[in-house]
Amino acid sequence: MLRDFGWTAAEKKIARAAFDLALSRELASVRQEVESKLVGSRDAHSVWGIHDYLSDKRREIDTKYDYRYSVLVSVFARLVREGWISEADLRGLAVEQVKAISRILALGLPPGRRGDASRRASDD
Amino acid sequence: MLRDFGWTAAEKKIARAAFDLALSRELASVRQEVESKLVGSRDAHSVWGIHDYLSDKRREIDTKYDYRYSVLVSVFARLVREGWISEADLRGLAVEQVKAISRILALGLPPGRRGDASRRASDD
Repeated sequence: MLRDFGWTAAEKKIARAAFDLALSRELASVRQEVESKLVGSRDAHSVWGIHDYLSDKRREIDTKYDYRYSVLVSVFARLVREGWISEADLRGLAVEQVKAISRILALGLPPGRRGDASRRASDD
Repeated sequence: MLRDFGWTAAEKKIARAAFDLALSRELASVRQEVESKLVGSRDAHSVWGIHDYLSDKRREIDTKYDYRYSVLVSVFARLVREGWISEADLRGLAVEQVKAISRILALGLPPGRRGDASRRASDD
């Protein structure tokens, strides 16, 4: 799953756009949840509930959005599975990449549970 | 400044009410600032600015609101200085305590900069 596919300049552009689209949608949903938590509770201490929520989300998003080409196929599979992008947003990637994403999606487990997410370095 | 004043049951009740009043006001102002930051920026990443703000405030408030009787006079002086409570909210405390608070207020430096805020244990 973590094969280092070659990426052409055109593919990199599509990949970056899909990645940014997913991230902006997920951030918008975090903002919406914060707004809803603010409206939903007038309790003075509820701001700390919002802080806890944002701490969790920041950690999760920071881990998930890993733009190394060596793991990007696995990242995209997870983003599609979670509904942040559709496979249509990945149109234009190499057939090999699209097939790898589909293979991951066809499996039952969330890809995020399988990939090696502990390393973090840009090979961009 | 950190003398351990004796506190009667009635004084403890007044102290607790003033402490809770200041805290609830400060939390309300934090909530208001979060609301204003949400309205003020539609940028997707602004939620992390809110998270940073809440992290700072949580640390500050957690340090400031120290309900040990041995430091409470110093805490009250700071809360009055910052405007979360007025000296009127402390009416009913022993003359000795009120005088100590006034003495701290008469000095130029914020009392929070002088007290030993590193220890944290309840002697309630």
